[in-house]
Amino acid sequence: MNIFLSVSYSSEISADGSVNAAYRHDLEAVIAVLEEAGHKVFCAPRTDNWILKNVSPSEGFNQDIDEILKSDVIVALIGEKISAGQQFELGFAFHAKKRLILAHKADVKLPYIDQGLVDQPDVSDVAYENIQTLHTDIVQHLELK
Amino acid sequence: MNIFLSVSYSSEISADGSVNAAYRHDLEAVIAVLEEAGHKVFCAPRTDNWILKNVSPSEGFNQDIDEILKSDVIVALIGEKISAGQQFELGFAFHAKKRLILAHKADVKLPYIDQGLVDQPDVSDVAYENIQTLHTDIVQHLELK
Repeated sequence: MNIFLSVSYSSEISADGSVNAAYRHDLEAVIAVLEEAGHKVFCAPRTDNWILKNVSPSEGFNQDIDEILKSDVIVALIGEKISAGQQFELGFAFHAKKRLILAHKADVKLPYIDQGLVDQPDVSDVAYENIQTLHTDIVQHLELK
Repeated sequence: MNIFLSVSYSSEISADGSVNAAYRHDLEAVIAVLEEAGHKVFCAPRTDNWILKNVSPSEGFNQDIDEILKSDVIVALIGEKISAGQQFELGFAFHAKKRLILAHKADVKLPYIDQGLVDQPDVSDVAYENIQTLHTDIVQHLELK
């Protein structure tokens, strides 16, 4: 299955444009589990070699929407801080009738619009306790259908 | 013209759910100018009588996407703080091929994804100095096409 992994990006970088090490480590762990389960994963910061300045906003935007359209499912890792990019991606993908999985730590409250979104058909809300559980939960959701 | 006025909402309310007075005042000024110019304006907090608790997240979500689909143009008032709802609305409307106008104060830097968005066809970036100029700028943009 082609997975578009939607993540915070421009808010998780250092002054030189590189993605923060701990955040990159977490994303790489999620990507590894999904790929080990046989899925093809697109994750923008990885494609950019973990440096935001490698692409202009326009290039990043076009790459993003092309990859969403090619994907079978969007897995969005929703954090405490609202990501403008993720929310845009979710809206775009929802209108494109893509299957959506919103994954978040159990103690993260989804933004108001996302609370409405997860009530829609083909949208799943996955609350996880830790990153190991997240892997299992996402993979289970992907295998259910 | 049917205008969907996309605004911050859930982050602009008091404990009782009512929209903050100064914010409401600003929105009412924008709505008035657009209506005086002959447009029909949908603005979610006004429809909710300026109280968020009047609707559930699901009802709000469905109302939102229905109104976007009925509109000719989305005018998004982008503030300093990222709004999850607005970004979702922009993504949804962009895939639905709606005309978009992103209006923001001249000193507000657009989120990274929106910097890419305003480079797309049928998307306008309107930087304004004050709320009076904003009215004129939006109306001009609407009349240009």
